[in-house]
Amino acid sequence: MVVSVAILGGSGYTGGELLRLLLSHPEVEVKQVTSRSRAGKFVHTVHPNLRKRTALKFVPPEALEPVDLLFACLPHGETAPIVDRLLELAPIVIDLSADFRLRDPAAYEQWYHWTHPRPDLLAQAVYGLPELHREEIRNARYIACPGCNSTTVILGLAPLFRAGLIDLDLPVTVECKVGSSGAGGEAGPASHHPERSGVIRPFKPGGHRHTAEVLQELTVCGRTPSLGLSVTSVEAVRGILATAHLFPKQPLTDRDLWQVYRAAYGQEPFIRLVKEASGIHRYPEPKILAGSNYCDIGWELDELPGGRQRLVVMSAIDNLMKGAAGQAVQAMNIRLGFPETLGLEFPGLHPL
Amino acid sequence: MVVSVAILGGSGYTGGELLRLLLSHPEVEVKQVTSRSRAGKFVHTVHPNLRKRTALKFVPPEALEPVDLLFACLPHGETAPIVDRLLELAPIVIDLSADFRLRDPAAYEQWYHWTHPRPDLLAQAVYGLPELHREEIRNARYIACPGCNSTTVILGLAPLFRAGLIDLDLPVTVECKVGSSGAGGEAGPASHHPERSGVIRPFKPGGHRHTAEVLQELTVCGRTPSLGLSVTSVEAVRGILATAHLFPKQPLTDRDLWQVYRAAYGQEPFIRLVKEASGIHRYPEPKILAGSNYCDIGWELDELPGGRQRLVVMSAIDNLMKGAAGQAVQAMNIRLGFPETLGLEFPGLHPL
Amino acid sequence: MVVSVAILGGSGYTGGELLRLLLSHPEVEVKQVTSRSRAGKFVHTVHPNLRKRTALKFVPPEALEPVDLLFACLPHGETAPIVDRLLELAPIVIDLSADFRLRDPAAYEQWYHWTHPRPDLLAQAVYGLPELHREEIRNARYIACPGCNSTTVILGLAPLFRAGLIDLDLPVTVECKVGSSGAGGEAGPASHHPERSGVIRPFKPGGHRHTAEVLQELTVCGRTPSLGLSVTSVEAVRGILATAHLFPKQPLTDRDLWQVYRAAYGQEPFIRLVKEASGIHRYPEPKILAGSNYCDIGWELDELPGGRQRLVVMSAIDNLMKGAAGQAVQAMNIRLGFPETLGLEFPGLHPL
Amino acid sequence: MVVSVAILGGSGYTGGELLRLLLSHPEVEVKQVTSRSRAGKFVHTVHPNLRKRTALKFVPPEALEPVDLLFACLPHGETAPIVDRLLELAPIVIDLSADFRLRDPAAYEQWYHWTHPRPDLLAQAVYGLPELHREEIRNARYIACPGCNSTTVILGLAPLFRAGLIDLDLPVTVECKVGSSGAGGEAGPASHHPERSGVIRPFKPGGHRHTAEVLQELTVCGRTPSLGLSVTSVEAVRGILATAHLFPKQPLTDRDLWQVYRAAYGQEPFIRLVKEASGIHRYPEPKILAGSNYCDIGWELDELPGGRQRLVVMSAIDNLMKGAAGQAVQAMNIRLGFPETLGLEFPGLHPL
Repeated sequence: MVVSVAILGGSGYTGGELLRLLLSHPEVEVKQVTSRSRAGKFVHTVHPNLRKRTALKFVPPEALEPVDLLFACLPHGETAPIVDRLLELAPIVIDLSADFRLRDPAAYEQWYHWTHPRPDLLAQAVYGLPELHREEIRNARYIACPGCNSTTVILGLAPLFRAGLIDLDLPVTVECKVGSSGAGGEAGPASHHPERSGVIRPFKPGGHRHTAEVLQELTVCGRTPSLGLSVTSVEAVRGILATAHLFPKQPLTDRDLWQVYRAAYGQEPFIRLVKEASGIHRYPEPKILAGSNYCDIGWELDELPGGRQRLVVMSAIDNLMKGAAGQAVQAMNIRLGFPETLGLEFPGLHPL
Repeated sequence: MVVSVAILGGSGYTGGELLRLLLSHPEVEVKQVTSRSRAGKFVHTVHPNLRKRTALKFVPPEALEPVDLLFACLPHGETAPIVDRLLELAPIVIDLSADFRLRDPAAYEQWYHWTHPRPDLLAQAVYGLPELHREEIRNARYIACPGCNSTTVILGLAPLFRAGLIDLDLPVTVECKVGSSGAGGEAGPASHHPERSGVIRPFKPGGHRHTAEVLQELTVCGRTPSLGLSVTSVEAVRGILATAHLFPKQPLTDRDLWQVYRAAYGQEPFIRLVKEASGIHRYPEPKILAGSNYCDIGWELDELPGGRQRLVVMSAIDNLMKGAAGQAVQAMNIRLGFPETLGLEFPGLHPL
Repeated sequence: MVVSVAILGGSGYTGGELLRLLLSHPEVEVKQVTSRSRAGKFVHTVHPNLRKRTALKFVPPEALEPVDLLFACLPHGETAPIVDRLLELAPIVIDLSADFRLRDPAAYEQWYHWTHPRPDLLAQAVYGLPELHREEIRNARYIACPGCNSTTVILGLAPLFRAGLIDLDLPVTVECKVGSSGAGGEAGPASHHPERSGVIRPFKPGGHRHTAEVLQELTVCGRTPSLGLSVTSVEAVRGILATAHLFPKQPLTDRDLWQVYRAAYGQEPFIRLVKEASGIHRYPEPKILAGSNYCDIGWELDELPGGRQRLVVMSAIDNLMKGAAGQAVQAMNIRLGFPETLGLEFPGLHPL
Repeated sequence: MVVSVAILGGSGYTGGELLRLLLSHPEVEVKQVTSRSRAGKFVHTVHPNLRKRTALKFVPPEALEPVDLLFACLPHGETAPIVDRLLELAPIVIDLSADFRLRDPAAYEQWYHWTHPRPDLLAQAVYGLPELHREEIRNARYIACPGCNSTTVILGLAPLFRAGLIDLDLPVTVECKVGSSGAGGEAGPASHHPERSGVIRPFKPGGHRHTAEVLQELTVCGRTPSLGLSVTSVEAVRGILATAHLFPKQPLTDRDLWQVYRAAYGQEPFIRLVKEASGIHRYPEPKILAGSNYCDIGWELDELPGGRQRLVVMSAIDNLMKGAAGQAVQAMNIRLGFPETLGLEFPGLHPL
């Protein structure tokens, strides 16, 4: 018996990608997709790749009926105020917004300049990153899917911090290079093609909100790294490459790193270690990940003048897949006891 | 019981795409993939999207063993000389090269400046365009898959010529806009990124070899259209948009055209008619087709000065899918009696 | 003594390009640049390439003072209603909008669905294409600069029609491939980067307004060609490649065409004939023209089945330069008696 | 009287850009341009933007005759062995290769794995970065132009190190995002368009050779920063954005930084400080610099958890201009006593 699902906020890029995945998923049936502005229109008028795949039309949010599982894809700040209604509609809610990702209400004040309206519920939400929280996801009532930059950075770095390899007295610097789809489907001056095409543009040199999630998840034994995140926009629609620069406590070798990463991720279906001695695809790169749910991770050791060793960790995802809709489906599969890769088998295209 | 298949010439883009599709196909098992230059290496070193998907390594062509069905992805002119060996290896051969697409040996002289070594076999090969030759494919021993430009143009125009709507006394002009993957995986001056990126470059203003296939397939009742094809390279990796300009015998209406195209393609699983009154995706565009096997078709009527009516037909595909590997798998499905869309369900990504 | 100029409507792409050119022009001084929405701001806040080049600020249109020459860069339909005021402000007006390009008022009804408010002035305006109207420009009071697609097409085809080489009983088909800047600086759904990046999108398969100018200028001895124009959007910011397909009265040779084009353009400073036997830059391509005022023109002859000869003419420009601001400065130079290339010396970049 | 110059190695991208600049320079005459492989061909066959600009043909290197100033654009390692001949040919040599950039011969061993054949001459060469070495350039016999990444990083950071603001006990991390032209004009697998287009690819996570120049120039009072450089390839042909992450000794304010940078660069013709409170062009970005000789510099202060302050410095150039040919012409102007901006006035295009 298939599981009934609905998507609240289905006209954006994340909602569209989720819809694409769910329409092909053998164990679920998409009952409703909402859009206030597009209500009454076929979903393929907004998501043209779904033409001939579904006869669904958008419904207004008020028309939502109870389902087994509800996906919420609203903009930041719009889910928390209506969370009680969502919990009435479905026994399981998977929220792709930022509203329940942070456990500490003060973090919302600091990073979002926003007083969280329902701090009472923050502790109940599970941070939906399967590689770090799989067991909690299995029984979660409310799953808060991580941000796209956060996913990329956390997956790249968590094994190192958990293994205690990093010198926490030294700063950690991370730079994410991101495509344009991460900013969403609404047109504006910064996304106007003549202005956005071909840019290498500092988007957020400091203070990016996803930093809060990264700090939360990389805090081990109460120690929060001194981590700074910069985000640069580059020419791509999908894709994030995070490059992290860290300084080990003790000098490391490639063998050490293979061991740490294999121990952490050897059984993970959606993580691949990419570190080749030759060829043009020696390191992770997001281009070949479009449409796939993989996170590719690699590294390089660099000896700096003065004898310090720098560890460069590179991780790559498709921001709309492992960074949003794909990860949400992965969490759903875990929560509902399906094979974790169900509906997420697409490997990505080459060349593209 | 799964069908055993092998790929001869698997290190190119077409071979890689075929391998991707076949690895996910539930009814076949890929036994061998050949590459002379890469023999002994994992296939994912060349096709990085297949990392963690297969442990296959390339074998030299001489190592090929008998299979139920053999795909040949060799460059033009390399299949015909060894065709007997291929037919010994497998009872069914699907050839993605140009060597058996044309029925008339003289056409090879004219368009390829090449004396076909096995004109005796040309008549036995079936032109593997399912929408026009499905019944012949069902029993074919040798299937010659169409070229990418040819597929786009023929699918867009065949219903019009078959319905006798076009004035054959007037010239037909077709312009294909193509991405870079169509030229294959070998680096060269024209594909060097600083020279190729962002170009709008006349690639072949006249005399493109795929014209021969188009003429062959659009010849109805012995009348060959006076058709000229121009190919322009644009910034894209995958994708072809063919824009054809034709002149109807009698003035047509949109309704006439809906009728003709629905009659021809209403039951076709991989053809979509795209003609919207509003929105940004009113006509076919290849961008959203990457990885999908669709051919999207649309049109516009234009009244010229002097009272002549011009019919503009636009058709779009992913050149590596419906233009090559996807169409080959579609032909295989037909030939082996599988559901025609098996393994070809991916709808394409939006945005991308 | 330098000439004083002003720009009406200087916050768009055409106005910005014009400003860039005029700031470097040794014989003019830019007195004022208007923008209603940006009044009071430094021009470099909108045109970031001009940072450190000028301390000019936008002024509101009402603040315009008399100058020697006025450039008007308003959207279509906004110049004609205020043309008397413009003519009061300056003895010479160069208008980059479409409002005075067509001599026949009925053409505005047909192509713009607009009743021209000042048909009395249409005959006084000179169509500012120097290669065809240089002598009229020398004494013009009002110069209407051609559209970008029109410029590309007309320059490519005019010598052929003037020489009477084309069979006017057969249709002429032209396809323009265009970058995104031609649609202007205002953001919207179609120009949103995730939707526009990498497209090969039918923009206007028929009925493009620039067709009206092309028909006007290619009418020779009262005979208007049966010409259809299609415009396709491709990935580029600047640049147009027009590919025209024509049918000669009598078979032509390359030598004939060299003669015709050399006779027409041999002395033209901004036209280059590009037709090489080898190399990757054998034909015109707009990529290397960014920032230059060149129009590159080439051709190919193609023998169609049935014995008909097709002539493919390719012409390329930078739409903001030869298609707008550069051509306006060229017209100014002619009108004021300066060397025609003054301020337009930039040759374009390679690679880019 | 114009100065005679020649270009040794003129068929590459750097040589072509130099030729473009010198052909328009009012005080020099280009006598000869060499290319071994292209000898006898018009330079415009390789540099198509120069069509109609010059009738120069390539000559073989052996054909070089004495000139007033010689530019050498050879690949790394090819200039040093023939340096005596160059010094015979011209009283002033401007070398765009890496062969004489480093003063310490041991640095060539370390970074280039190369034993420098003429360590005796290293001390005589001047590092041709005008903003740091203008006075030495005025009298130099041999000017070694900096690398493209080095230029971007050094210009961004030198004022901070010279002012003693940076905590040298903490690591400095720099990430350069680069276009494809930096890798030169030779085609290869990594630059094949289907593989290179749209990438966000780790090119050199550590150990990039340009690091040696950066360390040399940022060493102040004998203290070398603990600096690591990573280079990432992104979709662009021209352009570098360097993002540097540093940790101040004492907390800094934006006002401090404005003071430091204005003091260092307030009079520099080719440096612009770009730090806006609003708009889409708030920080430096290389896209608008194509063809210009500017280096744009901006910064942001970021307060990290734990109270540490991170300073993010962003600098951007056109790698072929300020990173190569433009800087070489700037050095020539200084050396010969011309206005420093002569022939380098092009401001860059917007949009592009």
